[in-house]
Order: sequence, then structure tokens, then C-alpha cells
Amino acid sequence: MYKIFCVFVAGLLVLTTSAQGEHPNLVLTKDGVAAIRDGLGKYPLLDVTFNEAKRDVDASIAGGIEVPVPKDAGGGYTHEKHKHNYSVANKAGVLWQVLGEKKYAVFARDMLLKYAALYPSLGLHPEGVNSGSPGKVFWQSLNDAVFLVNMIQAYDAVYDFCNTKERKIIEDGLFRNAVKFNTVDCKKVFDMIHNHGAWNVAGVMMTGFVLGDSTMISHALNGSNLDKNSGFLALVNKLYSPDGYYIEGPYYLRYAYWPFGLTATAIANNLPLVNIFAYRDSVLLKAPLAMLQMTNPTGNFLPFNDAIKEKAWTSQEVISAVDIAYSHTEDTNLLYVAMQQGTVMLSAEGVKVAKAIAEGKAPKQFKRHSIVLRDGANGDEGGVGILRSGQDDDQMSIVMKYGVYGMEHGHYDKLSFMMYDQNKEIIKDYGAVRYLNIVQKRGGRYLPENKSFGKQTVAHNTMVIDEKSQYNANAKTAGDKHSNALYFNADDSNFQVMSAIDTTAYSGVSLWRTMAMFRYDMAAKPVIIDVFKAVSNEQHIYDLPYYYAGTLIETSIKYSANREWVPLGKKYGYQHLFNVADGTADTNNISFTWYLDKRFYTLLTTAVPVTEAFFVQVGATDPEMSLRPEKAFIIRNKNVSNYTVASVLEPHGEYNEPFEYVNGAYSNFKNISVVGDSENAVVVSVSTKDDREWLLNIDKGKATITRVK
Amino acid sequence: MYKIFCVFVAGLLVLTTSAQGEHPNLVLTKDGVAAIRDGLGKYPLLDVTFNEAKRDVDASIAGGIEVPVPKDAGGGYTHEKHKHNYSVANKAGVLWQVLGEKKYAVFARDMLLKYAALYPSLGLHPEGVNSGSPGKVFWQSLNDAVFLVNMIQAYDAVYDFCNTKERKIIEDGLFRNAVKFNTVDCKKVFDMIHNHGAWNVAGVMMTGFVLGDSTMISHALNGSNLDKNSGFLALVNKLYSPDGYYIEGPYYLRYAYWPFGLTATAIANNLPLVNIFAYRDSVLLKAPLAMLQMTNPTGNFLPFNDAIKEKAWTSQEVISAVDIAYSHTEDTNLLYVAMQQGTVMLSAEGVKVAKAIAEGKAPKQFKRHSIVLRDGANGDEGGVGILRSGQDDDQMSIVMKYGVYGMEHGHYDKLSFMMYDQNKEIIKDYGAVRYLNIVQKRGGRYLPENKSFGKQTVAHNTMVIDEKSQYNANAKTAGDKHSNALYFNADDSNFQVMSAIDTTAYSGVSLWRTMAMFRYDMAAKPVIIDVFKAVSNEQHIYDLPYYYAGTLIETSIKYSANREWVPLGKKYGYQHLFNVADGTADTNNISFTWYLDKRFYTLLTTAVPVTEAFFVQVGATDPEMSLRPEKAFIIRNKNVSNYTVASVLEPHGEYNEPFEYVNGAYSNFKNISVVGDSENAVVVSVSTKDDREWLLNIDKGKATITRVK
Repeated sequence: MYKIFCVFVAGLLVLTTSAQGEHPNLVLTKDGVAAIRDGLGKYPLLDVTFNEAKRDVDASIAGGIEVPVPKDAGGGYTHEKHKHNYSVANKAGVLWQVLGEKKYAVFARDMLLKYAALYPSLGLHPEGVNSGSPGKVFWQSLNDAVFLVNMIQAYDAVYDFCNTKERKIIEDGLFRNAVKFNTVDCKKVFDMIHNHGAWNVAGVMMTGFVLGDSTMISHALNGSNLDKNSGFLALVNKLYSPDGYYIEGPYYLRYAYWPFGLTATAIANNLPLVNIFAYRDSVLLKAPLAMLQMTNPTGNFLPFNDAIKEKAWTSQEVISAVDIAYSHTEDTNLLYVAMQQGTVMLSAEGVKVAKAIAEGKAPKQFKRHSIVLRDGANGDEGGVGILRSGQDDDQMSIVMKYGVYGMEHGHYDKLSFMMYDQNKEIIKDYGAVRYLNIVQKRGGRYLPENKSFGKQTVAHNTMVIDEKSQYNANAKTAGDKHSNALYFNADDSNFQVMSAIDTTAYSGVSLWRTMAMFRYDMAAKPVIIDVFKAVSNEQHIYDLPYYYAGTLIETSIKYSANREWVPLGKKYGYQHLFNVADGTADTNNISFTWYLDKRFYTLLTTAVPVTEAFFVQVGATDPEMSLRPEKAFIIRNKNVSNYTVASVLEPHGEYNEPFEYVNGAYSNFKNISVVGDSENAVVVSVSTKDDREWLLNIDKGKATITRVK
Repeated sequence: MYKIFCVFVAGLLVLTTSAQGEHPNLVLTKDGVAAIRDGLGKYPLLDVTFNEAKRDVDASIAGGIEVPVPKDAGGGYTHEKHKHNYSVANKAGVLWQVLGEKKYAVFARDMLLKYAALYPSLGLHPEGVNSGSPGKVFWQSLNDAVFLVNMIQAYDAVYDFCNTKERKIIEDGLFRNAVKFNTVDCKKVFDMIHNHGAWNVAGVMMTGFVLGDSTMISHALNGSNLDKNSGFLALVNKLYSPDGYYIEGPYYLRYAYWPFGLTATAIANNLPLVNIFAYRDSVLLKAPLAMLQMTNPTGNFLPFNDAIKEKAWTSQEVISAVDIAYSHTEDTNLLYVAMQQGTVMLSAEGVKVAKAIAEGKAPKQFKRHSIVLRDGANGDEGGVGILRSGQDDDQMSIVMKYGVYGMEHGHYDKLSFMMYDQNKEIIKDYGAVRYLNIVQKRGGRYLPENKSFGKQTVAHNTMVIDEKSQYNANAKTAGDKHSNALYFNADDSNFQVMSAIDTTAYSGVSLWRTMAMFRYDMAAKPVIIDVFKAVSNEQHIYDLPYYYAGTLIETSIKYSANREWVPLGKKYGYQHLFNVADGTADTNNISFTWYLDKRFYTLLTTAVPVTEAFFVQVGATDPEMSLRPEKAFIIRNKNVSNYTVASVLEPHGEYNEPFEYVNGAYSNFKNISVVGDSENAVVVSVSTKDDREWLLNIDKGKATITRVK
């Protein structure tokens, strides 16, 4: 760390000169301006982006500048107006630089002057004043930080156009006040190791570069106490694992990487000696690549933690991540994403992407592969494993989560999994209970059911013990705990396996889950083998839910459907599940078959005569009718201390609707049983209806599978 | 009729010569064979189809012929095997004709010989024996009729290849027995005015043409009693309205037109003097065009009556309809559908389509327009009205149904409507309760809930009175009743309107619904105005459900959500609805806002202080968990005799997820009220929040709208 700090001190000296010399020099640079000028008319994606920016700014110039007194919450008029203002000011700066047409500089300058006039008069935002972290222009200080990041770029672009008097008005009225708000009023957020902190730091860092203010830069680098426990480098050190996994998961990385990417780019331009993109073994380049691997086949982010499932790599916040990462890595996989986004950054990075695409370098598909991402700053706090099989449109994948609790957006979901096939969710995670930007649903905020259901263990595909959530749903307890990775091995494409253990989620219970993706005898599709072992000295109720997508068409459980639906329990999320039907196993195996689109899925699982199954639907105790009617079956064993359950989940058959035929509607598997079970090893036998049999040997160090019949 | 009959008698003479002369001459003809030969290598769609047929047949030849003893129900092994056999035999015949390679003729002939050997030994199918209409090769006689239609085409193609002895074996063993089964054992079906009858008739007619058997032809034309109350012409006369509307609706027409199109083609080739495609003012060409207009924006058939919503124009049964219709009309709109189908008939008709597409004649979009389709053989039994606004991907449409009861696949849904926007359902019809071809769900048959829920009035978007279904859900009562069209006017694209009245569905109650699509002041999207007037001498409970798609985000009703869900009623479908929440109006207007994808929708409707609203979910009393959890709100007024309710349904705003902004999340409409209401006229005032106001004047002969403020 000492060495790094020295580098920064040296950098600051370089900066002092640089900032007083050249503008723009944050994300857009003089070279970037030249590259855009040169690329226009040549690279279609650049043209599209540039013309769209021009249309937007021209319309805004025609409409006149309006800087209303802040009043509305997210989604409301003043909120959307200020959002549009900072976006269009930033774009106008770019247009001024590229086209040299004065009207763009005038527009950006005048807007800056209006904000400079308004800003000093603002107290805390009326809609945010009772929240944890109100802003001034916006209801949340987070939005104010984003505002600053955009406005300072606009100012950087028109800096040379403004006269000294205007600069003083703008800097004193707007930027120094905004930095003060970010660093002093919002000191807690500024110093927070958190994506909100990253935005605050980004704005202050960039403002420091433009204003040539080394105090701002020092604060942004090392935290407001200059103790390096916070600030940009601390954020990079603490929020990312060595593999580029971000502590809050892919959905939040999508948003969090935005300030990281932009700030790193500004640092690269202003403090080139730091070599920020090489820092920590290039973790700031690993992160966007990891993030894109953590998407489902349609480019939506895996819905870990508080995630809105609609969010995909086409979201605007991912554009800079893709362009910055490509600019440094030239990984053509990124060009596929840029094409889906249909737009690029207006900067040297964006031009590079647009040029590569124009040269035909983009692949026809984004390639996803099996990947393990270690969690924790040192990579030793569990992780996320993704096994994938097949290519492109017919890739199947499973995701197991065994890392840390994802800060305040974490869920109590250790050892949970999700499955995708046919470009769709097959075993689902509910995600967040929130209607983003829908004002009528509590202003688009997280709904109470996010906490009471979305975060709870029973909302996930993992073991729930005694009808309670992991850590008793206590975020503080969960905060510093993590599962432990045992192994992840994807070398053999016909037998990929991952295994993890958790001893923290439930006091006195050790949980060990091993998931394999097994392509037996060169079958077209692999099957999932799922072995979940719980060890305890006490008897417990063990519930294992599977949230399936599709239509359940058969189960071996003799169930009875309830005429009236009542909640399955009272708390830990059970109050939100209706008991639709239930039954008890009368055999050693139970099966559940459903279909979705063109394929059937059967889960065959071990049972004992007292194994119960509940068929549940989400939606109970929902006073504002906010929950989606998702469906699950829950396998329950009670009055046992140790419990090992093994399942095989098989995709099978074909449902061809246009040509109206069905084949393979029944599973090929006949039996699954646990034939060996000790503290450190489990042996599972799986057999098909045509009497082939395999033994899966699992221990703490490896797993192997052998055909025995 | 007399004239037509004479034409047929003449035709029969022509035929007698023809059939003994030329083969093939059913759908595939000598000219068609020449056209295919000529087109191969030139027209990609023909190549694709031909090569696919070749692949299928080559694989089947390699696998050997298997003609198993019939055993399984739909979806089971022998069922699928026999289906594949008749399909591949038919294709092998085509390949023999086109390529002249002996192996294809041998394959088709040998399969015919195997069926000829098996058929005489068959009793009724074991899985069908207890059903109303068992087959021999298949569990349902319907499948046997389809089998015959395919097998006779295969035989026609290899007729010349077979020697006299083989012909005798095949004709005596298979075809004469199959015709006997169709006309004698299944006499009832054969003479039925119904799509099943059409298949039986098709097989017998074609067999008659190939065998030169005038008895078969006479039976097929005029019914087994030769009284012309049944048979092909009677089917055409009675099942189609003069506009080509088919009595069972578009979903069943999709299937029903298959035998009509093939039989008509065979008649055209064998009895050219009949000019069958000109018959009844070309009703057999109007029907496929009407059917394709009755699709939603993704090409799925409007789910009237018992309909599987997944069924789209890409289904194999629609291929011949499209090709035959194009062949006669050269309507290029059909080429778009053929491209979606990606395949053509292997006949002169298919070549013509493939050629036109290769010549670039296919449009970029299928054009749907506002259309009224009169129902009933004479066109005077109500109908179906479809209003459409906007083009292509942003077309909005509403569909109102006010025709006859659709035979045994009808629903009690008079004056119900559906709405589409954004290429999706917005106001939905449940369709049929059936999992087609899913063996595990009762062999893919209609489920009991189809009758107890799917058909019931409360499953539709129309008025339910006293919690009973129309006609007390009695099919016999409903059978000959129909609503009456008042008017349908789509001339003014800014104000399109349709109106219909029903006095048959509920004894003592007259129901009058008028629906307008009104593009006010050149707004981007029109609004729907819906005026529903019930008149009675008695007091009733009036329920009006709206099955919406999307997420309800706001309602002006102060509701309370129920902790336990119990069924809303005991019968007529109410037993399948859970009462999720309910409340009572405290204002003159109530509103419901939901969103789906990129747009918001608000229904603003008139209320009185006792108006109640129920928020319901489908899924109660569902012992096999077969129902989808669809949602609706039901507006209830009780203890009134006359009840007029007016609503405005507005699509509004934009939800842009990638760029995370929302605008127009609130409706522009402030008020709707009924300001005039008499026996024959209703006046409705509608006003916006910016105080524009319109008066909608409705009477029994017309509707007009005028801006008054």
C-alpha cells in the first residue's frame, strides 16, 4: 500500500499541471474528440449514438432550459427533469467539443449557471428528508452524486468556453457546494464501502481533476479522513474479489461499475502513472467480464440478492463497462454486447468499439462458459459457481451461490441455486420485491415484502431449517459470514461439479451441497445431480423448495388440493406462501414433472416414508397485491437430525406445438438413492429405466462418477 | 341446389374416366409434380420443404417400417408411430413422383401392404373404446379419418407403381375397409355438420376419386343418405358464414379448413366443372383469409371458444390453407405467413407460393385491418367485430364476439371482448383448459375445468348476471341462439365503433354493448370506450370482469386483501375464482391501473356508491392443479334492474427499462359519466384532466362522438 500511495502523491503533482492545462480530460479527452470526429460517418454505431445525442440536445435547446425547484420522488416530474438535464448537459458538452457549434456550449454553460444559482438555496429534498440519505436536487443523495458525475463532465467540456467570471459562479455556486454536500453532509455515504460511496467518490474525484483541487482528489482517493480506509482505492480493494466478483452480486455490479469504470478512466487520463487498470491484477477489467458471464442467456443479470429481473446488459449503465473493458482487453465477446446495446460511449473507448464492430469483429453469439468466481476481498470467502453445457441458444446452466451476504442488498440464500435452459429460467430465484420506477408502487422503492419475503431463505432454492431463515434473518449476524468453497471442476465437459459447505447459516447445523452437471452416455442434454447433506446433533424440520417455471403435469406424491388457501406459516417468508396442496411420500423416490415451452423437466428425489411435499404459491399476506404468483414444491423431512437428500433433475423430451407431437414426456430415470453416507463422504446411485446405473462418489475434496451397470 | 347437383352428376361422369386414367390427381397432380421438379434448386422454401421431407423419409426407410398394433392414447408410442407413418408414407409418394427413385415407391407400397394386412384384424382402439367416437388405428375416429386422407394420397402417388394384385390387397384390405369404417361404423360422424365430419368426408371423397368409386364420391358429396343434408356441400353451406367465418371460431377453423382445403383441391382436380372455389361467392377462399385476420399480432389464433393459445399460423395444419388460398387469390399478405411457416405444400400450390417468395413478393409485415365477420350460414346471426388502430408492431386491437354458440367447443361468452397491444394480450380470454398432447394431463384431452370454468361466462370479459352463466350454461339452450349485430363502422380511423345486442343469454334481460376505438385529438394511441347497458324488469347482481395482463399498480377502490383465500362462489365458474381482495367504491368513478412491458393501462369506469370491486385469481377448486393463476377485477352492481356502465380504457405512458425512465404513468382521463340513458340511446361524457370533454351518442343505428369542451 505504501508504494501505491507514493505513486499517487507523484500523480497528484502531474495532475496539478494537467488539470490547469487541458480540457476535456475526464472520460472524454482531446484524443477522444478527435477520434469521434474522425469516426463519424464511418462507424454506424457511433453515428447512431451521436445522432441520438444530437436529437436529444437539439430538442432540449428548442424546449429551453428548465431547472425546477426539487419536489418529486423518483419517477415524478422534477426527478425526471433533473435526470434529463444532467444527461443532456453532458451530451451538449460532447457536441460542443466535436462539432464546435457555439449553441451547444451556450446551452451547457447556461444550464450550469442556472444550477449554480439554484443550488445554494436548496435544503434537503422534501421527499427524502425523512429517509436515511436525502439529496438536495433529488430525493436520494445517490442521485445527487450521479448528477455531479454528469455535470462535472459537462463543465469539463465547456470549461474553455466559459469566461473567468462564469467559471467562478459555476464552481462556487454549484461544484464546491456539491462537493461539500458529498463529502461533509454526506460524509457517511462518501466514506462508505458501498456502491453509493463509489458514486460520491467519482463525482468528487472528477471535480477535483477539473478544478485542479488536490484536496478533493485526496479525499476521493483516500477517504475524507485521508486514512485510506475509504475512498476509491479502498472501494476497489474491499468490494471486489480477486476474480472481479462484486460483493453485492451482478445486478448491483451493473450499477456499481458505472462510477468505477468512469472514475478509473478519469484516473488513467489524469494520473497515468497509477496504471489503475492494472491495479490488483486488473480487477477493474476482470469485473465487467465477470459481470457479463453472470447473465442469463438473454443477457439479464442473474437475479442474486435484490435484483430486478428485467435488468439486462442493454441497460444504459452497462454501456461504459463494455466499452471501457473492450478498450483495454479487446475481448471480442464484448462487441456482441455492444451490438445488443446499440450504442457506445461518446469517447475514445466508444469509438474503438464502434470501429471494431464496423470492421466485422463482433461474434454472432456471446459465449458463456462454466466459471467460478471467488467471493471476498481475498477470494477466500466462498463464491459463485456456474456450470454450463451446450452452446448458444441451447445452453443449459446452473448457478450455485455460496459467498458472503451481499451487504444491505443481500438475501439469506446460502447454497441456493438457479437453473436455466431454453434461454429461460427453469428453477427460479424470486429476485427483489420492487417495481423499479413505478411511482404508484411506493415510488419505485423496495416494498416491505422484499424484506419479509424476497430476502428470506424460503424464497430460495436452498434448505430451510425449522421454518426459519438463515442467520434468523439478521443482517448483522449474516454480515461477516460466508460459506466455504470445497471445489469447482469444469474440466470434464461431461461431468462438471461444484461443492460448498456452510456452517454459519444455522447454528449447530452444517450444510453441504454438491451439484453436478452430468452428460451421461453422450445424451443430448446433461442432467443435474444435486446432493444436499445436513448434519446436526438436534432434530429439525428440513424444507427444500424448488421454484419451478412452467406447468406441473405430474407428481408421484398423492396430494390433496386445498379448497381454501391459508398461509403456510407465520414468519420468515412462510406467511407469503399459500399451501395449495400437500401430500406424503409412500415410496423411496418422489418425482415432479413439469414442462416449459418445448421441453419437459423431472426432478426425481430420495424420500423416506415420512417425506412430505407442499405445493405452494407466492401471494399470501400481501396487502398491496405486490407479489407475483410464483409456484414451488417444497420437500419436507422432519424429526431427523442428519438428512441427506439426493436428486436428479432431468430435462427431457420435446413438445413440438406447430407440428403437434410430443416425445419423451417421461423421465428416463428410475431411481436415485444414497447408498453411502458418512461425515465426509456421500455415495449416490442413479439409474435409468433401461437399467444403466452410475455411482456418484462425493467427498470434501472431489467428486467422481462411475458407470456400474 | 338443383343446378349444383346436376353439375355434380356431370362431374361424376368426367371423374369416372379421369380416375381410371391419371395418378396422382388428388392434391398432388401430374402438373404439380412437373412444377416441383422445375422449382427445385430455384425456390428456397420449396427446397427446404422437399429436403426436409427427403430427410424424414430416408431416415424412415433406414429405420424400417413398423406398423404396431394400436395400443396408446394421444401422445403415446403407437399413436405417434401411426401419425408418423401416414405422414411419411404421403411424403414418400411425393418423392417417388418427383425423383422417380424406386425405393420411395417401395417404401410407400410396403407400408400400405402392412396396413392392409393389419387393418382387417382391428377392433375398436382399446383406449377409445369407452369414448364417444373411438377409431381403430387411433383412439379417436377423427385421427383415423386423417390417417385415411394421408394414406390415400400416398396410394394415389404409387398407384401406377403397384401391380394389380398389390392394388387389390391394398384397396380391399385397407381402403374399402377404412371407408366402410368411416361411412358405416362412424356414420354419425360422417354425416355430422362438424369438423370431424369434414375429415371423414375428405378421406372418403379422395378414396372415391382414386378408386374410381362413384358410391364413395356420392356419399362424400351428399351424405351417406344421399339427401344432401350432410356431405361436403352441406358442410360448406352450414359451417361457414357468407364472410368465411367458421362456426367454431378461428382456432377450430385452423384445423377444420385442412380437410376443406384439401378436399376442395381434389374436387377442383377431379370435378373441374363444379368450380368449387367459386362456390358460395368463393367462401372457401374467404375463410382462410378471415382466419388469418383473426390472429393476434404474433400470429396466434384469437382464443375464442375452446382454444389453445399457443396455436399460431405456423401450425402445420395452416400450411395448406395459406398455399391453397394464395394459389387462387394471389393475395401477397399470405406470402408473409408462408415465410413464417417456413415450408410449403409439396404440390403445384406450394410451388406457386415458394416461387412468389423467391421473387420477393412477400411483404415485410402481415397487414391486419378492422374487420367484421358475420356469423351464421346466412350471415344474419351476429358475428365477430375487430377494431384495429396503428400499424404492424404497434397495432392495438379489440375483438368483440356476438355470434352463435360455437357447437360443442363454444363458450358462454356473448358480448365478451379481448384487447391486444404491444403484440400482447392486454385484456385476455382464458381459452381452453387443456394441455394439448400432454399425456400426463389426461392424455391431452379437455380437462373437467374446461367445462366448469373455461366455458363459463365469468371466465370472460362480459356481463355475468346473478352469478350464473349465459343460458344457465346449457349448451342445448345456447345452441340455436345468437346475438344481433347493430352496426360496425371502421370508416373513420379516429372513431371506429361496433355495437351489438343480446336478448337470449339471460332470460328477461337485454344486454347491449357498444365498443369504440377513439383516437382523440390525434393522440398517439386510441382509447377504448366501452358502454354496456343491461335492461330488465327485475333486480339483479351484475358482474363485469376484466381479465387484465400485467401488474396492477393502483386502484381507486379502497380494498382489503384477504388473509385466507376462499372461492368467490359455488358454481358457474365462480368456484374457480379466489377472492383475493375486495372493496366498495366511494366515488362516481373508479379506476384500475396496471402496466405491462413498456406501457400503462387505466380503466376508468362509472360507479355508484354501492359499486363493489373484487380482485380475483383463477385457481380455486382445482384438484389437479391445472388452472393458470390469471387475474381479474370484477365490477359488481347489485339490487338494480337497469344498469348502464361506461368505461374508458386508456393505454398511456412509457416504461423504458434500459434507460430507466418512466413517463405518463397516470391516466389522462378525469371523468366518465352516463349523462343520458333511455331505452334506445345512451349519452356518455368523457373528459381529460386538462378539461377537454367529449360526448359519445349511441343509439341502435349509429354512434357518434363530439368534442364539447
